[in-house]
Amino acid sequence: MDQAVATSLNPAVDAKRFWATIERSAQIGVGRSGGLARVALTDADKQMRDEFCAWCRADGLTVTIDAVGNIFARRAGRDNTLPPVVLGSHLDTQINGGRYDGVVGVLAALEVVRTLNDHKMETRRPLEIAAWMNEEGARFSPPMVGSAAFAGVHTVDWVYARQADDGTTIGDELKRIGYLGTAPVGGRALDSYLELHIEQGPELDARNIPVGVVTHGYTAHGFIIDVAGETAHTGPWPMDKRKNALVGAAMLAVAVNDIGWKYHASGGKGSAARIHAWPNKPGILSDYAQFTGDVRHDNPATADAMRVEFMAAMADCAKRSNCEMKVFDEWHWGADIFDAGMVALVRETARKLGIPSMDIASQAGHDAYHMAKVTPTAMIFTPCRDGITHNNHEHTGIEQTLPGINVLLHAALARANRGGNA
Amino acid sequence: MDQAVATSLNPAVDAKRFWATIERSAQIGVGRSGGLARVALTDADKQMRDEFCAWCRADGLTVTIDAVGNIFARRAGRDNTLPPVVLGSHLDTQINGGRYDGVVGVLAALEVVRTLNDHKMETRRPLEIAAWMNEEGARFSPPMVGSAAFAGVHTVDWVYARQADDGTTIGDELKRIGYLGTAPVGGRALDSYLELHIEQGPELDARNIPVGVVTHGYTAHGFIIDVAGETAHTGPWPMDKRKNALVGAAMLAVAVNDIGWKYHASGGKGSAARIHAWPNKPGILSDYAQFTGDVRHDNPATADAMRVEFMAAMADCAKRSNCEMKVFDEWHWGADIFDAGMVALVRETARKLGIPSMDIASQAGHDAYHMAKVTPTAMIFTPCRDGITHNNHEHTGIEQTLPGINVLLHAALARANRGGNA
Repeated sequence: MDQAVATSLNPAVDAKRFWATIERSAQIGVGRSGGLARVALTDADKQMRDEFCAWCRADGLTVTIDAVGNIFARRAGRDNTLPPVVLGSHLDTQINGGRYDGVVGVLAALEVVRTLNDHKMETRRPLEIAAWMNEEGARFSPPMVGSAAFAGVHTVDWVYARQADDGTTIGDELKRIGYLGTAPVGGRALDSYLELHIEQGPELDARNIPVGVVTHGYTAHGFIIDVAGETAHTGPWPMDKRKNALVGAAMLAVAVNDIGWKYHASGGKGSAARIHAWPNKPGILSDYAQFTGDVRHDNPATADAMRVEFMAAMADCAKRSNCEMKVFDEWHWGADIFDAGMVALVRETARKLGIPSMDIASQAGHDAYHMAKVTPTAMIFTPCRDGITHNNHEHTGIEQTLPGINVLLHAALARANRGGNA
Repeated sequence: MDQAVATSLNPAVDAKRFWATIERSAQIGVGRSGGLARVALTDADKQMRDEFCAWCRADGLTVTIDAVGNIFARRAGRDNTLPPVVLGSHLDTQINGGRYDGVVGVLAALEVVRTLNDHKMETRRPLEIAAWMNEEGARFSPPMVGSAAFAGVHTVDWVYARQADDGTTIGDELKRIGYLGTAPVGGRALDSYLELHIEQGPELDARNIPVGVVTHGYTAHGFIIDVAGETAHTGPWPMDKRKNALVGAAMLAVAVNDIGWKYHASGGKGSAARIHAWPNKPGILSDYAQFTGDVRHDNPATADAMRVEFMAAMADCAKRSNCEMKVFDEWHWGADIFDAGMVALVRETARKLGIPSMDIASQAGHDAYHMAKVTPTAMIFTPCRDGITHNNHEHTGIEQTLPGINVLLHAALARANRGGNA
């Protein structure tokens, strides 16, 4: 490779300073005990964004907001005609989220920049920190919508029109919280993208290995299914005339769960995430329901087979519930999306720094999946206790996280200084 | 029997006047095309109550509101020391309700009183029209809560504390719309209770018979089940560690539907009415869900067996979903609740008036079920097209309804004048 990889922890990031930002973040959008409920584009998300932008400006970075609310904080390089190396993740959380999912990646990127500032180290290429809008999809579906728009997967207007359950749109909320920026969404050259993220699985924690070199993602197929039935009385209306959309959606939830179990031995998952029905009230059968779920597997062909099985199950559920079902939306991600050179850079950086690492697959979706479509991308995983995530008991510590941030720093340095002396 | 039953339609109710009240009601709380969404204790319910009370007062009745918002409009008798004959039903509707369910019964009672006024006919006993609070249970569970409180099934404070999905309580809303009355709830002697209601089934319509003599109710067992799980990521979290409360609730919905089908040949029903889950969002497994459903059968022993089967299914669903399940609330109603003399009075009145009638069971719950606990009670069913109800396509006509109102008038007269000349 044409990039020089560091062989010592010089510079090294400041553990205490990094952790102070995590602790400050943990006070913004407090959820259940120990957790966060900093759902995208809420007042809490705005507060976190405001504080993060203020930190970046205080550290000399130039903050830009694009038209879908992605935040970019740029540290100039020696040659600013070269595309930037981007380090990022997200600041929004699930409604019963932890303190670390996403947040660690953005604040690790900030710590990387601060460390370079401490040491007055210039880089050949500019560096940018990215905080992507609505990674979680907890309020607005789909997830990872900000990075997807950046990668050209969605148009800006399509993103604006995404609705929360109460009818509020992303466009409304971006405007309300002051993050409807003016910068174009994507369409510009990047050198590369690096994302540090907690593993959200138990492997690193169980093995006491601080760095996961993410080789690829599980293949995931997600779907939103609309179920159409008819309202009627829960009492007199005969079973053979019923078109209870709630029963149809419930059958889909059970079916996807069954498919997950069928492939459990090889690590497959089938998830029922959401049922929204109307009227969904005592005494009346529902005439509308929407089901959201997904299937995932490490083997793309198996994941594809699981999707086919779900679609077959859908036809069966439609028949058994006497409802009409149709796919409202579908998405998929994963497989061999990361750049081989970038993955090797992460692995090599850890090795040369003497930091234990292991190759690992990502089972969750990440902004990096979309970024990989437009620039060479890799991810660094850090441990979280027992793999618990999307839960207020999500936990990690500075000792578990610090080695990964140093790998991020030195991989970013190698990439930013590639083709020219540091 | 000691009551004289009329042998001619003299007096007879005024079809046009009655239908005008139905048409006015159809303008208050308009829902989907042709239907109503006049959910209990909303602004629309208040408006309907206000207009109904104004009509009653204009017709010389004394209006009283009790402490749970039940409305009573009293027409004095010759001997006001005698307990009143009460005619009633409800003015609230489902959120996708029709124009007739409940409404026809209250407005038929008003037409009975207006007819007596037209003919300056006094009755020995007082007559009262009752409009019960929250029969539908579409906003506040359980259904029929106003009549249940009147019958002593619930305390007033328990009723006040019932919550809508948004946390609003019945107590709050009664106060807000001005129907937190001062009259004691129940605890007073009644002569009898008569309720006219659309059948909410297809029997009368199919046979072109205008009057159903309701002999008894299907036995219904309803339940609200709480499901407790754990939030986790829909991606990495292994199937065997999952405690997805949404899957648990979905299994309950499928199970109750299966039980309904098992007893379909003998007219049994199993209904999944509602699933409420949290967070119920993409990307996260739910740690809480609540399922509301019921089973019904004409044979009380069979209905009991269906309930037992559901409880066994619940244990199985809990095991398969790895969630904890417990009964949050249970209710039941139906069977041989009506007074034999009152049922015979309705049948005999129709016969002597030359109005075709048939004996029929009620498959839905009604305020009359609670009233039967405290006073001799019977119901009169009138036809509705194809049995469609709890749906904006619910339909009936004046020709189908008028015979029933005349039976109500003459049965009420017979009862009110019982033991003394009219």
